[in-house]
Amino acid sequence: MTQLELAKNNKITPLIKKVSEAENISAKKLIKDIATGRVVIPKNVRHNISRPCGVGSGLKTKINANIGTSTDKGNLKDELKKLSAAIKYGADAVMDLSVGGDLKKIRQEVLKRSPVPVGTVPVYEIAVNAKRQRNNPLKFDARDMLHCLESQAEEGVDFFTIHSGVTQKNICALKTSKRILNIVSRGAAILASWMNYHKEENPFFEYFDQILKIAYRYDITLSLGDGLRPGSVLDATDKAQISELKTLGALAQRARKKNVQVMIEGPGHVPLNQIEENIALEKKYCNNAPFYVLGPLVTDIAAGYDHISSAIGGALAASFGADFLCYVTPSEHLRHPSEDDVREGVIASRIAAHAADIVKNPKAALKWDKAMSLARRSKDWKRQIELSVDPEKAKNYRASSKPRQDDVCTMCGEYCSIKLTEKCMRE
Amino acid sequence: MTQLELAKNNKITPLIKKVSEAENISAKKLIKDIATGRVVIPKNVRHNISRPCGVGSGLKTKINANIGTSTDKGNLKDELKKLSAAIKYGADAVMDLSVGGDLKKIRQEVLKRSPVPVGTVPVYEIAVNAKRQRNNPLKFDARDMLHCLESQAEEGVDFFTIHSGVTQKNICALKTSKRILNIVSRGAAILASWMNYHKEENPFFEYFDQILKIAYRYDITLSLGDGLRPGSVLDATDKAQISELKTLGALAQRARKKNVQVMIEGPGHVPLNQIEENIALEKKYCNNAPFYVLGPLVTDIAAGYDHISSAIGGALAASFGADFLCYVTPSEHLRHPSEDDVREGVIASRIAAHAADIVKNPKAALKWDKAMSLARRSKDWKRQIELSVDPEKAKNYRASSKPRQDDVCTMCGEYCSIKLTEKCMRE
Repeated sequence: MTQLELAKNNKITPLIKKVSEAENISAKKLIKDIATGRVVIPKNVRHNISRPCGVGSGLKTKINANIGTSTDKGNLKDELKKLSAAIKYGADAVMDLSVGGDLKKIRQEVLKRSPVPVGTVPVYEIAVNAKRQRNNPLKFDARDMLHCLESQAEEGVDFFTIHSGVTQKNICALKTSKRILNIVSRGAAILASWMNYHKEENPFFEYFDQILKIAYRYDITLSLGDGLRPGSVLDATDKAQISELKTLGALAQRARKKNVQVMIEGPGHVPLNQIEENIALEKKYCNNAPFYVLGPLVTDIAAGYDHISSAIGGALAASFGADFLCYVTPSEHLRHPSEDDVREGVIASRIAAHAADIVKNPKAALKWDKAMSLARRSKDWKRQIELSVDPEKAKNYRASSKPRQDDVCTMCGEYCSIKLTEKCMRE
Repeated sequence: MTQLELAKNNKITPLIKKVSEAENISAKKLIKDIATGRVVIPKNVRHNISRPCGVGSGLKTKINANIGTSTDKGNLKDELKKLSAAIKYGADAVMDLSVGGDLKKIRQEVLKRSPVPVGTVPVYEIAVNAKRQRNNPLKFDARDMLHCLESQAEEGVDFFTIHSGVTQKNICALKTSKRILNIVSRGAAILASWMNYHKEENPFFEYFDQILKIAYRYDITLSLGDGLRPGSVLDATDKAQISELKTLGALAQRARKKNVQVMIEGPGHVPLNQIEENIALEKKYCNNAPFYVLGPLVTDIAAGYDHISSAIGGALAASFGADFLCYVTPSEHLRHPSEDDVREGVIASRIAAHAADIVKNPKAALKWDKAMSLARRSKDWKRQIELSVDPEKAKNYRASSKPRQDDVCTMCGEYCSIKLTEKCMRE
């Protein structure tokens, strides 16, 4: 039985207990939210993970870090370094998006070493195999697809992004949407190309029931990909995007009926003032399924700093109810990310997630800010550094610039406001 | 006559013409907004600046970069490098906050070289002089204060931050507010200490009329400092902050009556869901005076990355109507900023400002995003780099990671979604 099925039957499993303790909520509340589909716990029955994570309403905002080789860059060793960095800096989940090198080997190593849930986009492996075996990434059929899903499931992948919403109907909506950038999802681009090449319906849509059977057997969480997400703020919240979202909502209902956990992926590039609406639409059309957003980037012009554009959008999205933030690194739109890019992406997402948690659950979240502010008040630098989102960087910054009086910092020196105020507020 | 007085008399000056052209609005509309105090143009009559900037409603969101020595760090050469970096990366104004070294010399060099308006916090120089001459930074009187303002005015400073709202009454409100961090403004900490030491009212409040006279003669814009801004998200929007804001609103009215341009400074550390309210309160209590916000930081825990915490808050604040964003660098709370910190701070603020301008004035702001998205569609990498917020960084990123096919990047390589989609969308 899947966690969803167990929750429907009111069973509190060890996994539920662990997650409820980590979140400091009651197991009873947690299974209620799992039973209604508002929360998922991505964990393949065959995968041991020491830091399982719940995703959904009432829980802390979670963050995901994408790693994986491209056809141009990356090898197993580099990707494992990036995995370590992602974990070290606080990712709650990782996705292995490899399309270069020995995909199976890389995935297995990531699965073996990751203490957090691991997701994949199986259509990548399907296309890469087709290219390698038949010299055309589009030369695959539904059997190849199901075979790949089954084999990744058996290896222990915890969640699959599948682009089942990229249907003929939604591609029609896209064609009339007059976008600047039609499709910016790699998976959706492969599938739209496949559909055009074979003149057939998307196999991830056509064979959704068979996919559910595999997901059910391993308790894999399906992450329904937003293949038609906007890739420019000018394309946001258009007919193509909303049409696909409605399809995903209907598919989510089918998944839940078969006791398969499901979450929904969301945009993308969205202007600040459309973010609240985007969250509300997802919650409405997808019956409050957990919302996993890719950004959103609030402007298209921040190449080199898209982790910042994404932190702005992600913080706002999560404060309005998005549950899971996919990080964006500074290298987005420019290159395959480095280990350092991974660190910067994870930290930016954590800041966004925490800023949102202050809104979602102030009592719990503000403890961290309170501890930091108390450390500032008492000019306890050791504690301030420990409490920083990246203690190593904070330590290096302070060490690089030594004040003459060691209870202040070199910004204000002897004119430290906290130090000056201490005296006059006492009197 | 000041620009405010001229605007009240319906006079279109060369400065008004220049600013209206840069903003692509009519000079007529601009002087109307200056006359009602919704817009200011900080420019001392004695200071030549090639890139004047208007601040206020209906205009692009502006950003300010703080530079200046501390008692521990910085010298003229380093600060001039930081000035250059601030200008290069796009600051619309700078403030020289020096408290170490030859203050007059540093300020004069900054004034001479800056193509944008220069602001100061005169109480710093007043305290530093007192400390140097009388070995106590609090040993100054109203005469010293007015003398310093006059001398900086004569040198050409374009805007003064003065903490006239730190009154006995508002300090009382602070004492009953039970904050974690009482005063985090360096200027306010000096003044509160001065008031406690001398048992007198704040001279910047007491002698406000004399200050207005100096400001009027040189057409200096007063930036009424929020000395009691919250320094922790737990202290946000409290009695002390709002009580000071009301005082600033009343002072702003007095300034306008005397034809002195005025803007209001704002917090600080503010949770995401209190930002809209903070902007609305300022516009209400200060009669729509331009709002100059210091952040706001949406969490206290991001030391080392406070430019990101600030970009989140700044984008949101500006989208709700804040007009001027003071940058925050990654070194905030840890050390005196380096040249690189200045770059990171300016860029993060520019991203926030632009994300907000997409909301405030989409027609104008989206041109940049549209051009970038079109360059992405046509895989025109040269143009994408030119259009990036920091072309140098974008160029370096791309150069560091060369794709095999030169129309894509190493992130997706041959699985580039844009390239894959081109074909299938045509058919």
